[in-house]
Amino acid sequence: MSHVKEAMNEIASFISKATELIDSSETSKMVDMLIEIYHTRKKVLVIGAGRSGLVGKAFAMRLMHLGFNVYVLGETITPRIDKGDLVIAISGSGRTKLTVTAASVAKDVGAKVIALTSHPKSPLGLIADLVVKIPGRTKLAKEDDYTTRQIIGMHEPLTPLGTLFENTCMAFLDGIVVELMKRLGLTEEELKERHANIE
Amino acid sequence: MSHVKEAMNEIASFISKATELIDSSETSKMVDMLIEIYHTRKKVLVIGAGRSGLVGKAFAMRLMHLGFNVYVLGETITPRIDKGDLVIAISGSGRTKLTVTAASVAKDVGAKVIALTSHPKSPLGLIADLVVKIPGRTKLAKEDDYTTRQIIGMHEPLTPLGTLFENTCMAFLDGIVVELMKRLGLTEEELKERHANIE
Amino acid sequence: MSHVKEAMNEIASFISKATELIDSSETSKMVDMLIEIYHTRKKVLVIGAGRSGLVGKAFAMRLMHLGFNVYVLGETITPRIDKGDLVIAISGSGRTKLTVTAASVAKDVGAKVIALTSHPKSPLGLIADLVVKIPGRTKLAKEDDYTTRQIIGMHEPLTPLGTLFENTCMAFLDGIVVELMKRLGLTEEELKERHANIE
Amino acid sequence: MSHVKEAMNEIASFISKATELIDSSETSKMVDMLIEIYHTRKKVLVIGAGRSGLVGKAFAMRLMHLGFNVYVLGETITPRIDKGDLVIAISGSGRTKLTVTAASVAKDVGAKVIALTSHPKSPLGLIADLVVKIPGRTKLAKEDDYTTRQIIGMHEPLTPLGTLFENTCMAFLDGIVVELMKRLGLTEEELKERHANIE
Repeated sequence: MSHVKEAMNEIASFISKATELIDSSETSKMVDMLIEIYHTRKKVLVIGAGRSGLVGKAFAMRLMHLGFNVYVLGETITPRIDKGDLVIAISGSGRTKLTVTAASVAKDVGAKVIALTSHPKSPLGLIADLVVKIPGRTKLAKEDDYTTRQIIGMHEPLTPLGTLFENTCMAFLDGIVVELMKRLGLTEEELKERHANIE
Repeated sequence: MSHVKEAMNEIASFISKATELIDSSETSKMVDMLIEIYHTRKKVLVIGAGRSGLVGKAFAMRLMHLGFNVYVLGETITPRIDKGDLVIAISGSGRTKLTVTAASVAKDVGAKVIALTSHPKSPLGLIADLVVKIPGRTKLAKEDDYTTRQIIGMHEPLTPLGTLFENTCMAFLDGIVVELMKRLGLTEEELKERHANIE
Repeated sequence: MSHVKEAMNEIASFISKATELIDSSETSKMVDMLIEIYHTRKKVLVIGAGRSGLVGKAFAMRLMHLGFNVYVLGETITPRIDKGDLVIAISGSGRTKLTVTAASVAKDVGAKVIALTSHPKSPLGLIADLVVKIPGRTKLAKEDDYTTRQIIGMHEPLTPLGTLFENTCMAFLDGIVVELMKRLGLTEEELKERHANIE
Repeated sequence: MSHVKEAMNEIASFISKATELIDSSETSKMVDMLIEIYHTRKKVLVIGAGRSGLVGKAFAMRLMHLGFNVYVLGETITPRIDKGDLVIAISGSGRTKLTVTAASVAKDVGAKVIALTSHPKSPLGLIADLVVKIPGRTKLAKEDDYTTRQIIGMHEPLTPLGTLFENTCMAFLDGIVVELMKRLGLTEEELKERHANIE
């Protein structure tokens, strides 16, 4: 069963190296934008397709626990987005068509867009007000291979497709949650109080 | 912004330590059960609530890419489950009521249940045919604190609630995907061919 | 293609007859409970499985358009439910296990439960603070056949399983929306302003 | 509570009149395309946003009960769509951006598209291989008012926004289900056997 362990170690090691590769000023700007939204009670909308969308939902759930006014694109009670609201769009390749289309509509209505992507020059990256570059081999496997191999040590990654991007993105967003807890003075107990109790 | 990095390192380090703590014979049995299901073309149903449910969906998506006949509880086209089908239930605490209820119905109809939980003696653990114990501080934060602190070095974890369980579970299941690729002789290219192209 | 027309007419006729069969005092109590929740800003949680769950989501979306603080069980940002919150549970048979379990947890935490079901004496009906009996042949087809045949004129319904219940329930809940608009003095324009604009 | 009854009667009456307004040759073509897909075991993908999306999911669930190989856009296990697959796109206005974008990608990969819309000349209508025109006041309320008033008798409809379209669409698709049962020789018992049993 050593492939399971090896793959987990590849992921762990990639997340750890990513902490050095993610630009701390991008992270800092993202946190500031979230703090501002928190205080103005404006809406946050999280968008993403496939596994990136699932990572986005995991983040949205924590934002709800933190007391944000947060929604997920495509869910039942997602309301109108307006000027001053914040959209967080996740796409490793930055080319996922429905994500780019949704982000583009968000810009049209005056919302700010933060893109989490490995490709700042992608259509999503170019639309965004802020790009946080998250390393990771994405679905565009071939283009990304060289960078990924440099990070993991000049060999083919074991984990397929966007796995490294998705796990790194989840850990990064969970890091943002910790930072928001500290900055907003929120305790784990307060998060727990908002956690769903019918499940 | 150092909390973001610290939290990411806590997650990375926890995943890495988890590779030593997860029982390789449990992992091995889980892979064998999945391989058997793959060859018999029986159904896999993934169940879980909250962030554990999202991690389960990320795994279900990869099982689809691998060619499994896989479904997620609560989605539109999820069919009847029968004798011989396989249910994978994820709950850190093993006490999430709707997950336990669903797993219990699954047992009643003759499906096999694999539980991914930190608590093998929990209601979910006791129902399951196979428990894979995944370390992690779960929602039952207080009970889990001692073990977690032992793993991360006798201090309070930075990340709240089930974060360590959820990230570790995601990395573990992505490790299972790599193992299944090797055992079934599937290439990344074959996974990519099944990947959604309208998104 | 006459079966399509016949089935549509069966549905239309059933909805029309249902207006006479649904107890107006039950409807009235349901509207009063919703009006009270609207003014107290408490939460509404909608629960249901399968097609009943989809009908519930369609209602939840309109409640959001009306300005309610509404959530759907199983979606990402659904928070804790507390004493004084209102749960609307939909199940034709009143026996859908996960719906009954969720409604039962809701009662435990002190929420009020409204059940929409064809079976007031079912487990769901017995838990509920208010039952609104919606006629309709449900999944328990055999038990329901006699009543349904009486309504549609002593022949077998064309539409399978819970179709008549689900369509009637959707029309009934859309009727509740109209009543809420009148009682709360809300215009279609106000609903439209809250309607999602990224879709 | 008379508004509830009046609204239900408006919906029932609209569905009934719609049976005369829906072009039976369009319905017939839609059924033929579905029958062909059923026999070739190709995929059906259902797409739609908001309440139209929910109506689409209710139809997709029944297609699964009928034994179709059916998926819903945005759900976890939705795979690649290919040449020869069939996309059913629902949008009253025919202008819902993400639905139009998705339908357009579907055309690019060689799938056939059936559009259910009140606006055959809309962007969605123009993309589609087959348009089934479903009457109904949609979100484009003003444009649709004249037609709707003609149908319901020269007064303002009680029900807001797309309610009449959505209920009519649901009844129409349930009519298609009945037609498919007859044409494919499937009994209610066979549908019930495929119905989810963990719920």
